[in-house]
Parts: sequence; structure tokens; C-alpha cells
Amino acid sequence: MEEYLARIGPADEAAMRAATQRQRLLTKPAGSLGVLEDLSVRVAGMTGGAAGVPAPAVVAVFAADHGVHAQGVSPWPQEVTAAMLANFAAGGAAVNAFAANNGVDVRVVDVGVATDVDELDIVHAKVRAGTRDLSVGPALTADEVLAAVRVGFELADQLVADGYRCLLTGDMGIANTTASAALIATFTGATAADVTGRGTGIDDATLAHKTEVVRAALDRHEVPASDPLSALAAYGGLEHAALAGYILGGAANKVPVILDGVIAGAAALVAQALHPAVVEYCVAGHRSAEPGHAVALKALGLQPLVDLDLRLGEGTGAVLAYPILTCAVRALAQMATFESAGISSGDEDAAEAGSSAAEREGDA
Amino acid sequence: MEEYLARIGPADEAAMRAATQRQRLLTKPAGSLGVLEDLSVRVAGMTGGAAGVPAPAVVAVFAADHGVHAQGVSPWPQEVTAAMLANFAAGGAAVNAFAANNGVDVRVVDVGVATDVDELDIVHAKVRAGTRDLSVGPALTADEVLAAVRVGFELADQLVADGYRCLLTGDMGIANTTASAALIATFTGATAADVTGRGTGIDDATLAHKTEVVRAALDRHEVPASDPLSALAAYGGLEHAALAGYILGGAANKVPVILDGVIAGAAALVAQALHPAVVEYCVAGHRSAEPGHAVALKALGLQPLVDLDLRLGEGTGAVLAYPILTCAVRALAQMATFESAGISSGDEDAAEAGSSAAEREGDA
Repeated sequence: MEEYLARIGPADEAAMRAATQRQRLLTKPAGSLGVLEDLSVRVAGMTGGAAGVPAPAVVAVFAADHGVHAQGVSPWPQEVTAAMLANFAAGGAAVNAFAANNGVDVRVVDVGVATDVDELDIVHAKVRAGTRDLSVGPALTADEVLAAVRVGFELADQLVADGYRCLLTGDMGIANTTASAALIATFTGATAADVTGRGTGIDDATLAHKTEVVRAALDRHEVPASDPLSALAAYGGLEHAALAGYILGGAANKVPVILDGVIAGAAALVAQALHPAVVEYCVAGHRSAEPGHAVALKALGLQPLVDLDLRLGEGTGAVLAYPILTCAVRALAQMATFESAGISSGDEDAAEAGSSAAEREGDA
Repeated sequence: MEEYLARIGPADEAAMRAATQRQRLLTKPAGSLGVLEDLSVRVAGMTGGAAGVPAPAVVAVFAADHGVHAQGVSPWPQEVTAAMLANFAAGGAAVNAFAANNGVDVRVVDVGVATDVDELDIVHAKVRAGTRDLSVGPALTADEVLAAVRVGFELADQLVADGYRCLLTGDMGIANTTASAALIATFTGATAADVTGRGTGIDDATLAHKTEVVRAALDRHEVPASDPLSALAAYGGLEHAALAGYILGGAANKVPVILDGVIAGAAALVAQALHPAVVEYCVAGHRSAEPGHAVALKALGLQPLVDLDLRLGEGTGAVLAYPILTCAVRALAQMATFESAGISSGDEDAAEAGSSAAEREGDA
């Protein structure tokens, strides 16, 4: 872990200054591309101003099961996790459709599915067959946490070695919004009620029960925000640990990491607690309908690119956001400047009015 | 005009019912793709359930100038319109970068630029060299309005004949947010202050002056919302008229029309006033930072897909939204069903609890 963290440094300030400067010269009113201008500057900081858009991209879907499923926090049978892995492998899930549409490759990783999925053509890195029930004891041992973090970090290393220049997060695991809620509460100080949601769809009675499970688990484990590895041990899941490692690995490799929804948000809070600079390499793909996600994004200081009431997971929100990121970077890289295009930037008028166009546009 | 309107009919209810039914069978919790599920159903209604995603796509950038520029409503010289056309033709503008990124073709149309752009490799359909000043009289004659509407409608026909299956709106015209504000106020009953914004970036004093220009123009012309062609004559612009025709043409050809920002919103209100069903073929690409746009979208009943503070125009917001639309359609078309994937949809559990999974998910 020490070795991993030592590889992470802050974003490249000089590249960000150069990108900010170039934004001002492009053939558009200053600021008129809104959030995309800041995004292009942030990506320049991540990559050190690498030429071209961050491509190709890959979404890693980390899958695992949760012992807390036994407490009735989800209407779905646990076997759905493994069945969905088969669906991913066959190309039949939403993330496959989105990824095919947006030119993103998909890697599916078994980091802890409860049942045997050996026959599937996916990445096999099972640390254990699901977590223990967080409502009765720790979900994972310290060694299991580290093993799962290593799966994610080393996959990030491998994907970048394979040529990928943008890493997207994905996840699959029935009951994983429960572990996410506990993690988000741990790192933000929010209450169980603030961060526990309906996941894939539960009724009021199940939501009340799930919230009580999260509240009792927070009381039982009492993990401080300063101890992220213990939080992963207390609540899991194996996919959260792997995602935290994957996010750290993206930062270590200086490539943008596009976060999906609430599971990725929880994992990013873990990664942030391990190394604060990691957030400089993260882009929030979307805001999930799950209430804990907005809480996590606020604590991460990230603004989501897409906000369309998605609550599926799998990486769908991250894949949906990928073309927005590449548009932002491509505009910065490829647009003409006022000078190169021979266009007046309105400075003459501005001079008459006694103020620069940039200042006036700053009012907008 | 009669002939154009006669070609427009409502969206295909049977195709929408079939799409809604298929959404329920796909391998995901019901509703978990949020806004994208409704979008896929709407697109099925537009196309009659055509197979595959709406591709290829093209953004038509209608450019024109505005006589009201003489009133000092914009900090930019009028010549920037023509200069930006040269920039579009050379591929140096934001819309070119976004379109290249998202696989969208670009067509640039001179429907009324004040200066001579004959040498550019664009579509030449100039109706007149800019509108008259709306603050001193009608911007256009009735014949000029019809000619510009025809440019847009016939371009839509031509593009669909060329094989395009999704039409995106774009626009360029210094001072065109002023005409947009007057049109939006006309069709929504909003005040000049509600709908007049900073456009590409103006200071408080210019905003106050611009708002007063819009208010006085509304008083002078007093066009009722029931007379859209007179509204175009009163306020222009030529690009608004062409866009209204283009939107009508998209609806007549039963292809999705992705609207860009406030200019497209104003034009869509004109088109809606001419034929209410046209909105069934419109998708709001994004919400612009310009205040009139939110007012227009509300009146159109459309929810924007992207909301990232863009205020550039050119079609950038529509192009940014295009992959979201194709993801929505591709998921509906290509995802496996629970039955085909052999996955339990949780019905067993649901049966035990005495309610269907669909009903429980409806609570989410």
C-alpha cells in the first residue's frame, strides 16, 4: 500500500495554467463552454497536458457479493450477481450497449462473487466468495481488504500498460448500496438516513429496515474517517476495495478516472482518505438517484456531468459521460484561436467602452 | 406552409407501447435507466419503432445577422457572424470539434448573413442580408419569413433523403439572443426581464439596455401567440425562421430533432405554434445558461439531457447530447431480456412478499 501511495502526486499545475491560457484564446466567448472548460483544464492537469483526447477508454466492472444480503436489504436473490456477470460476458447488459455506443471497452472482474463463475470469459481475481455479514461482524479481514485493493490497483496498471488512457469505474453486486451507505456515512459524517436509499428499488418498509441495518452497523463498528482500510474491513465490499485500488491506480498512472454512481463514490471516498490528491484525477460521470451519492460527491468536491436519474450501476453513468469528457478535451486541443482564424474578439468595442471583453464576459 | 404542415402527424402510439413493454423485460431493475427509458420510448414514437439507432446524424448551423445589432445589444461586431462561418467551414469552431468527436456531420447554411460569404464552401440560401432593426419596425416581410422557413424545411427533406436519421439544430448570429427573447416572451407570456440574458457575455448596463429594447419591441409589435409567422416577421431572425422550418421538416420526416439552446428553443416555440405535434419529435439537447431557454423548455414540455452551463450556441449542446440519445436507443434495442439471459427477475421473492417486483420497483 505504501508503495502504491508513493506513486501518486498532485495534478500538473503548469499544464493546467497552459490549458487555462489556451481556453481564453479559442474562437468562442470566454466561459461559453461552461463546465467543459474547467473539465478540459482538469484533464490537462491529470495527464500533464498530453496531446489528444484520453483514448482508448475502458470500463472495469468489479463484481462481488455481500453477506449483509442475508438481512433482506434487497429484493433480488444473490444469484443475480453471477447471472449478470454472464450477461456482461455475453454483451447483453446496459453497460455493454452504452460501451459499444461510445467506443469504450469493457472488462468484467470477479473480485468476490459468492458463486462459481469460473466458466465465464472474464478477469478472475476472486478474493473470497462474498463478504461476511457486516451487521454481525467485520465484512473482511485486513488481508482480504489489501488483496482486493491490489486487484484494482494492478488492473489499472495493466490497462494503462495495454494502452488505455481513460479508466471508467463499474460495479455489480446485489446489496452493494448497503455497504456504500455505511462507507459514505463514515467518511462524511452523514447519518444512515441521509445516505441509505432504495438501490435497485425497494418499498418503504424495506428502506426503513435497510436504514436501521446501516445505522446499527455504524454503531457497532465505530470506524473513524481517518482509518479507511478498517472501514473497508468493517463494511466491505470486495468491489469497493478493488474500486478504491483502481482509482488509486488511475491516479498513479496519471490518467482520468471517470466515476460511475454511488458505489464508485463510496470507493473514491476511501481512496481520498488514503491519498487526498487522488480526487484530482477523478471526474464524476453522473449523479445517481441514490441519496448517498450526492453526499459523496459533495465531500469529494466533484460536479457530475450527467444527471438523468440513473440508478443502475454497472458503469453506465461513467460510460454515458465519456463523450462529454472527450468533447471538452477535443475542443481545447483542436479549436482555432481568434488569431489563427483572423477573427476580431470584440476588443475594439471593449476598448471603446473602457473595459476589456474578458472583464465584461466575466460578468456573465 | 399548408403543404408542410399537412405532412406532420402525431408520434406512433403503438411503437411507444411496444417500447414501453420491452423496457420492462430488459435485464435491469425497472426504471433504473431513468430519463433514458422515457427517451427511448419517445424516439420509438418518432421513428415508428425503426430498427437501430438514429444514425447518421447531422447538425445544420443556420447563420444570419440582425438589424437590432445597431442598438448595441452585443459587444461583438456584426462581422463576427461571417468570420465564424469561415471558421466553421475550416473546421476550427467548437461545434466542429464536438461533431468530429461524436460522429456528427456539420452543414453550415447562410440564410441571412449581412456580409458576402459567397466564397465559403457552405450551403448558400441567403434570403436577405440580415434582418431589419426590430426596434424600429418589422424585421422581415411575410414573404421573407416564408422563404426562410422553406430553406429549413427543404434542407431537412434533403438531409433525410441523403440518409440522415437524426437532425440536430445549430445557429450562429451576433445579437440573435435578442430576437430569441422577443419570440419566447411572445409564446410564453413571460416578461422581457424573464427572458433576456447576457448572451455571449454583456455587463449589467448592456443587459438593462437589451432588456429595454426587448420590452419596447414587444410593446411596439404586440404579436399574439396565435400568430407565429407574424412573430417571425416582427422580430426575425432569418435563422429562427429557418430553424422553425427545419424542426417542422424533421417532424414531417419522422426523425428525432435534437434542439440546441435558446435560439432553437425560440424556433421550436414558433414551430409548436404552427403545429403542436412537432414537439413530439423534439429532444432538448441541453439547458443553456441563457434565462429564456428554461422558460422556453418549460413551455415546450421538454427536459434537457445536458445541463453544464453552456451558452455558446452553434449546436454544441445538441451535439453533446447526441450520444446520450443513441445510448438510450441502443440499450432498448440490444439489451438482453431476463428471459433470454436466463436471469431471475426477483419474482420469486416478490411472490413471497405478495406483490410483483414491478410494483415494488414502482415505489423506487
